[in-house]
Amino acid sequence: MRAAVLHAPGDVRYEQQDDPEIIQPTDAIIRISATSVCGSDLWDYRGINPATRPGPIGHEYCGIVEAIGADVTTIKPGQFVIGSFFASDGTCPHCQAGFHTSCQHRELIRGAQAEALRVPLADGTLVATPEAPDANLLPSMLTASDVLGTGWFAAVSANIQPGMTAVVVGDGAVGLLGVWSARRLGAERIIVMSRQESRQTLAREFGATDVVAERGKEGVAHVHDLTNGIGADAVLECVGTDESMNQAMRSTRPGGFVGVVGLPHGVEIRGDRLFYSHVALRGGPAPVRRFLPHLIDLILGGDTTPGRVFDQILPLGQIADGYRAMDERRAIKTLLMP
Amino acid sequence: MRAAVLHAPGDVRYEQQDDPEIIQPTDAIIRISATSVCGSDLWDYRGINPATRPGPIGHEYCGIVEAIGADVTTIKPGQFVIGSFFASDGTCPHCQAGFHTSCQHRELIRGAQAEALRVPLADGTLVATPEAPDANLLPSMLTASDVLGTGWFAAVSANIQPGMTAVVVGDGAVGLLGVWSARRLGAERIIVMSRQESRQTLAREFGATDVVAERGKEGVAHVHDLTNGIGADAVLECVGTDESMNQAMRSTRPGGFVGVVGLPHGVEIRGDRLFYSHVALRGGPAPVRRFLPHLIDLILGGDTTPGRVFDQILPLGQIADGYRAMDERRAIKTLLMP
Repeated sequence: MRAAVLHAPGDVRYEQQDDPEIIQPTDAIIRISATSVCGSDLWDYRGINPATRPGPIGHEYCGIVEAIGADVTTIKPGQFVIGSFFASDGTCPHCQAGFHTSCQHRELIRGAQAEALRVPLADGTLVATPEAPDANLLPSMLTASDVLGTGWFAAVSANIQPGMTAVVVGDGAVGLLGVWSARRLGAERIIVMSRQESRQTLAREFGATDVVAERGKEGVAHVHDLTNGIGADAVLECVGTDESMNQAMRSTRPGGFVGVVGLPHGVEIRGDRLFYSHVALRGGPAPVRRFLPHLIDLILGGDTTPGRVFDQILPLGQIADGYRAMDERRAIKTLLMP
Repeated sequence: MRAAVLHAPGDVRYEQQDDPEIIQPTDAIIRISATSVCGSDLWDYRGINPATRPGPIGHEYCGIVEAIGADVTTIKPGQFVIGSFFASDGTCPHCQAGFHTSCQHRELIRGAQAEALRVPLADGTLVATPEAPDANLLPSMLTASDVLGTGWFAAVSANIQPGMTAVVVGDGAVGLLGVWSARRLGAERIIVMSRQESRQTLAREFGATDVVAERGKEGVAHVHDLTNGIGADAVLECVGTDESMNQAMRSTRPGGFVGVVGLPHGVEIRGDRLFYSHVALRGGPAPVRRFLPHLIDLILGGDTTPGRVFDQILPLGQIADGYRAMDERRAIKTLLMP
């Protein structure tokens, strides 16, 4: 098969590789229908995360099951499936509590930007649809694999309740789908922090009622202006920098939650500031598997808007162009078809 | 009147002072029935907190209303009342949301270790009992003013639900009353981290089922041994040091809450560690006023056990001895009677 390989920072190549094989009896092999580049892939692409290279890359995927191991019981060849970026057994205490990304046997998925992929712990990881979805549903289905599930977890972690005012920090795919999720969970007012016009427009289409273009202190002051000096009931932190975390905490009212899904890089939280703010922090790597059945239902029900975060669609062979476009923020998110 | 005055670190004196007077029409003056020394007073006593000295001290109190300002409507002279360590208006958005310690007009109470005390915002701050309670209820009533309300908030913030396993970090009055609160909120198993035998005994009487004497890594390992390697569902952080916060976070299962009520001194939380732990943090200065009616009801209903945290009772004139005993950890908590 052919697959993307990260050779060095900035150097992604589409190359011939060995076909994936069943290694454990709980594995499945899937033929990829669509895959995509994630904001977190850029940490590797930019050389910020240490990595063993050259190596496979990509963890957002959906596709058709090609083969299963002897112990797989719930997934069958020919089914269309979606999985999360962590394989999970579905049976350990952490999975049972809904925190599949802390599964006692979790394995990080790598190599989804390829024609085929081995998925460990297939029964606990993959969710099959009743039938293969129409092509127009494919982009939205693909978002459920990571960015939609992560945006949803941000909204759930921020304790969104009907009628609340929410702030979304971050206008990447996760932030935009955080807006979408907050709206569907009942937030009445949704303030998105964004400086880029195309992203502001998409955020409004997803349900944002207000846009704050300022950052830092000015951004926080604007949020307080919009909320009568109270702050927001719920804030979604979808970036992961020290500045964005501070912005999120300071935009939250006492007693409110920050739902934290941005992968933290250099974030340090002063205990006394957190304490006296009365703000709660909750989040982590999104346990997307918990939300997959519900999100798939919403999409099969006809809501195909999540897929609109893909503003670039390329053949998988042109993946290097996709990375460049996202790295330079020319694309919000790139979908790749093998 | 006579009142305690902190002159310098380690130097508390009981001295003649001017009687408190109504300054604002929302004030009340109360004659103190009982007051006490708080763990947080020791930060001042030890000179760790910067302070203007000489100055009044003390914020835990209950007593009889002596006078009220012209605008006070719900509190009457002659009533027995309890208030929190922050005066709150009871009407601003933060009070309405139950976060009275973030009240937009809050004022810190100082000078409760005295014969009489001026309490601002009396209508929003004080809760009166139907009649003056019997003397045997007085110690428990006094705990409701701070340490019981704070322990209760720790348990509420840690999201204690019936049947859960809880860990309490800290065996001071707040930690011990955190055990008491966790039990009454339905925790089935309560692990208290304590090294001192008299405190372990009291913790067991309050509802602790297990004692962990180790600290740091060993303490965390012991908690994991006791919870099948999963961690506790809910953890109450009642100390406020960097070590205790780490111990609390590492004792919590993914998806669990740490209820943070220990006043943080030098606590720094690494964003990535918090993120990958899937642990939620929630707490702050306890909005004791929210819980006062319920806690007073429990005590009037006959539960006089909270008052057992007082293992030293002194005349207010001997307050210097009370500070010394608590500073040297010879007393868990000192009750003072004018």
